[in-house]
Amino acid sequence: MSEKLPVIAILGGTGDLGTGLARRWAQAGYEVIIGSRTQDKAEAAAADLKKVMDARGVAAVTVRAMDNLAAAQAADIVAMTVPFSHQTSTLESVRSALQGKILIDVTVPLVPPKVARVQLPPEGSAGQIAQALLGENVRVVSAFQNVAAHHLQEGQGLECDVLVCGDSKEARAEVIKLVEAGGMRGFHAGGIANAAAVEAMTSVLIFINKQYSCHAGIRVTGLESH
Amino acid sequence: MSEKLPVIAILGGTGDLGTGLARRWAQAGYEVIIGSRTQDKAEAAAADLKKVMDARGVAAVTVRAMDNLAAAQAADIVAMTVPFSHQTSTLESVRSALQGKILIDVTVPLVPPKVARVQLPPEGSAGQIAQALLGENVRVVSAFQNVAAHHLQEGQGLECDVLVCGDSKEARAEVIKLVEAGGMRGFHAGGIANAAAVEAMTSVLIFINKQYSCHAGIRVTGLESH
Repeated sequence: MSEKLPVIAILGGTGDLGTGLARRWAQAGYEVIIGSRTQDKAEAAAADLKKVMDARGVAAVTVRAMDNLAAAQAADIVAMTVPFSHQTSTLESVRSALQGKILIDVTVPLVPPKVARVQLPPEGSAGQIAQALLGENVRVVSAFQNVAAHHLQEGQGLECDVLVCGDSKEARAEVIKLVEAGGMRGFHAGGIANAAAVEAMTSVLIFINKQYSCHAGIRVTGLESH
Repeated sequence: MSEKLPVIAILGGTGDLGTGLARRWAQAGYEVIIGSRTQDKAEAAAADLKKVMDARGVAAVTVRAMDNLAAAQAADIVAMTVPFSHQTSTLESVRSALQGKILIDVTVPLVPPKVARVQLPPEGSAGQIAQALLGENVRVVSAFQNVAAHHLQEGQGLECDVLVCGDSKEARAEVIKLVEAGGMRGFHAGGIANAAAVEAMTSVLIFINKQYSCHAGIRVTGLESH
């Protein structure tokens, strides 16, 4: 008997990044719940996801659409991909439903219009904001901030590694499984304070994208050296 | 006629990272000045550098040893590789000699003993501290924080890219030349505020080194995609 896969909710699952993650996990056989502020938007995104999976020949995909709170309640693991300006309000609206669960925080603290400039919050990082707001009964794991949504939405392999930060090593390991299920390499990258490095790197990558006309990512090197 | 290469001073040039950079630039034909708090220490490091260059069959290397202030005065471009706790005092001692020049700040704001934990300063980054202290007549460029000294000291190619941050694009381009002379790829990574991302990444890499028993670095990927 194989282990039952966790059900994953993606809050803010109608955006580019949420859509990309949903496609990766649905394709890997996970049951995915698209969460949004309204049921209508979630349903449109879920319908789109089913269509893309059909086109890729992925059979028997279970996709559901719910509002964010219902999605968080129904899932085993909750990922959140909302703009930084909505991070706190979204977390407050689902806090009770997250207790005892892992929250994968994909928030990047970009401050428009200067999104290519690092402007970390006084708390240190969006990951730390989430952990402080949710309390220690929720294991916040920060991940996927450096992956181009463009690349995630495609079905192929990805050249960008995922640095996984969180105070619980076990929770990081769970998220690394999801990273690998999505076709990427995931690395233990330290406690939630280290999310600052990854979040800030997103602005650097946005700068590089503009400068060199590309969709840049990063890879960890030197793993073989001792 | 070829362009005359700039003379490079390395303040704190007796440490592991300074030694590594000195070897790379001396090997590429640059005149290098090893700076230290005392002439004696600088001379010992310069003698060692000459010995390593001899062993590698690199002829006609010009290496000088000076205290930090004299080194900064004599050089065209000044690199600084001192511990974070000495950054401000070292910069204050050479500020006058840096006016009109490029300072390559390699400072990483690690806070021992938890060096694998991101702990950025309230100013945002060590790079921003340097730029604020030195004033706009000094073009501060932040670079090399993610490269393992271990790898720099070896003569071979390096798998770690160098993200180059600074408010002057021309100064960044000068530093990218030095990165390339050292056998690495250098990238324009944004203004000096973006040094926060690179400095913070060093703690992530230290964490990865411990976790995976390696000397990790990062590479920029996705440069070909549009």
